[in-house]
Parts: sequence; structure tokens; C-alpha cells
Amino acid sequence: MSVYDRIEELNITVPKVEPRFMFVPGVQVGNLLFISGQTPEVEGEMFYVGKLGKDMDIEEAKKAARLAALNCLGEIEAVLGSLDRIERIVRVIGYVRSAENFGEQPLVINGASELLADVFGENGKHARAALGTSELPFGAPVELEMIVQVKEDGANED
Amino acid sequence: MSVYDRIEELNITVPKVEPRFMFVPGVQVGNLLFISGQTPEVEGEMFYVGKLGKDMDIEEAKKAARLAALNCLGEIEAVLGSLDRIERIVRVIGYVRSAENFGEQPLVINGASELLADVFGENGKHARAALGTSELPFGAPVELEMIVQVKEDGANED
Amino acid sequence: MSVYDRIEELNITVPKVEPRFMFVPGVQVGNLLFISGQTPEVEGEMFYVGKLGKDMDIEEAKKAARLAALNCLGEIEAVLGSLDRIERIVRVIGYVRSAENFGEQPLVINGASELLADVFGENGKHARAALGTSELPFGAPVELEMIVQVKEDGANED
Repeated sequence: MSVYDRIEELNITVPKVEPRFMFVPGVQVGNLLFISGQTPEVEGEMFYVGKLGKDMDIEEAKKAARLAALNCLGEIEAVLGSLDRIERIVRVIGYVRSAENFGEQPLVINGASELLADVFGENGKHARAALGTSELPFGAPVELEMIVQVKEDGANED
Repeated sequence: MSVYDRIEELNITVPKVEPRFMFVPGVQVGNLLFISGQTPEVEGEMFYVGKLGKDMDIEEAKKAARLAALNCLGEIEAVLGSLDRIERIVRVIGYVRSAENFGEQPLVINGASELLADVFGENGKHARAALGTSELPFGAPVELEMIVQVKEDGANED
Repeated sequence: MSVYDRIEELNITVPKVEPRFMFVPGVQVGNLLFISGQTPEVEGEMFYVGKLGKDMDIEEAKKAARLAALNCLGEIEAVLGSLDRIERIVRVIGYVRSAENFGEQPLVINGASELLADVFGENGKHARAALGTSELPFGAPVELEMIVQVKEDGANED
């Protein structure tokens, strides 16, 4: 079964991600793919803007985390050609823009982890760190950074 | 000599770390093990809560960093079965919850680096980044993220 | 052509980086080199101190990011012996010390990305994340963390 069947079942659209001027969506070394940080952008515009504990609640930030995770999948697709080449989501770091004393970053990043579990099942279970940060690019409430294991060429098991 | 002999000498207890709902303690790809972020929790409760430059001093935060490092060892043990399978501590990123103008994050993270040197000697010497951050999960003063090199199967050197 | 020819053309000096007490400039596993975080220090003194959106502008912070990137090259040289052993800059994470509502971290980190592109051309194009943070060690406006791919021993291509 292709992961795209599951993506269709979930009624998800994986965004197209374009290379930026200064850096690339991801770099693969051996079977590890290191991808660039992603925020909840849609077509170059920040779709969610806010700071947790100040002007955004956890439910909305979870949606932002989910969107950032979809953008990560877009990056992976841009590099690998197909999400079916993903063997495993290895590690996710989630940064949450947090006002003084907001400490529920893990609940926000669950929005990304749930998407990855939905799409990839057991292979979506990753090592994770959830962190707070004062500011993120262009007011994003969440940024994700991810490492992915790529299937060996010619591998037909999973 | 087993690393557990050294752990006994140091009178250290390595905590048991349970998998969480959404993510796993660590993911191994080849001989690299990427582990999840750890805070100074004890049995699911944050043992140290505070912000450097505001309500926690460096000495106490070093103890928190040491405890977070022990929790990292607990994660590694949960994944690998035994700490004796560690070849090398590769990289540690330490995030320190910092009030305005607190800039001594490296001194705090030394609490983790010292523990790793005590336990693993030369193999505990790692690449490191110490960072400040506004907030961390549940008020933790420190969070650690770690990459470890795992011994090759059947390796009998080192 | 050696990368040092290009470094001379660019009139750049790669700083010497000394090991610290508690950690090392970098650790190599297979062909991946994980290096320690670098700030815009010169000979152990912070050369740029400031916070974006408060007392440092983007142009000056870009210079700080460039200097931190040079220090990263110094670390790589300390570990590998020669920058000619670099196959590829894999991933750069750039942390920018940011006052409330400063959201242009990517513009600051371009100072590092531009240097890497200048020195390494296509091989300098990396995956990247730009993040804001409240504080950084000793008031640094920028900290960089980097992963590098090392040429295989005896490789004569590229």
C-alpha cells in the first residue's frame, strides 16, 4: 500500500515546497535525510501567527503544528520524489513560540506527532523534543525540524 | 569493564524511562541513536522548576542538567537494552530556560557534560551546543537532546 | 581546486578553534560530522553582543552570523585537519537572540548561508532552520549548530 492511499483516506493535501534562495528543502547523506525547518506557511504566507500563553490557544497551535508537519512532508517529497521512499520518521524537534510561563509545548507538538502517526503508523513514531522559544520567523507559533530515514534503493520490505 | 561498574562506583541510579503516547524514547538508524528530549523529571513529575537569572541559580540548574542527562541514559537503556552498547556520546544540545540577560548557559550544561565524562570517560566527550530559551515544558530549567553512537553488533573492541 | 584557494580569493581567515574543557569541537560518526555550537567569538571574547529587535540591526547580526560560520569552519578544520575533506554542508541550525516580536531570523542567518555558498558553492547548500531565542551564551546575537558530510577516505571525485 502506498502512503498516498492513506493520505487520500485522511483527506490530506501535501503542499508543494519550493527551494529557497539560500538553502534547500533537505540534504540526504546515506539513508538519513535532514530537512529544513518548517513553519505553518501556506504558499509563502504565514497562515497561523501567534504566541502561546498570549494570543493563541493550544487547539489552534496544534493545527499550526499539523500544518508545519504537512510542509515537512512537502519538503521530503521535493527531495525524494515520493513519500513512499520514507522508511521511518526518525526525530522531530518542535519549537513553540511561548509567552512567559507557558509550559505546555508538548501538547502543541502533539499536533505534528498525531499527523505523522496517522500517515505512517508505526513508522511515524519518532524521537521528539518539544521546546519553547521567545520568537519564531514571521510570528509563526510553531517551527518543526525533522530527520527521516530513507528506504534503501531497491528495498521492497518496509 | 561494564559501564554499570562505573555507574555503581559513582553511586548513580539510571531512571527507567517509559514510552510516551505520541513518541518513543529513541530511534536508531545504522549506528546512530537519536533520543527524545529530556527534562529533570522524576517519575513523570518535574523535579526542578525554575528560570535562570530569575529564580534558580547555576549550581541548582547544574543538578537539573545532571538529572536530565541521567534521564537521557534511561532512554538509551530503554532503546538499547544496555548502556554497554554505547560507543560514544556524539552530540548534546542543552536548552536553558533563561530570564532577560542571563548568558551563562554553558555553565549550566556543564552539569550534563560532567556526568557524561564521569560515566563514559573519553567516550563521553561530545560535540555540544548550549542555548537559552524563554520557556521549556512544565517549567523545566533545562532540556537536553542527544545523539549517541551505538557499538557495532559483535564489536569486542573499545 | 582546494577550498583554501577560494578562501584566499574571498580574503577570509578561518579561526583556530581550541577544544574546551568539557566538550570537543566535533564528533565524526561514519561520514557525518556533528560540530559544537558556535557564536561570534574572537579568541574567546564575544565580538558581537546584542539582541535583535532591541539593540542590534539585521546588517550587523548578519556579520555576526558570518563570523559564527567562520568559527564553525575553524571547528571542522580542528577535527578533520583540512576543510578540503568536506563533501557537503548538510544542515545548519541558526538561533537568533530576539526581542519581543522580532521575526526576521531567516535574514540574519543568511549571513551564515551566504558565507557557506561563497566558500563551497553547490556543496555549501544546506538544509536549514532559523529560530528565535530569548538568550544566548554571553550575550551572543547568534549561535550556529552544523552537520557536515565528510569525504570518504581516498575519494578523489568532487
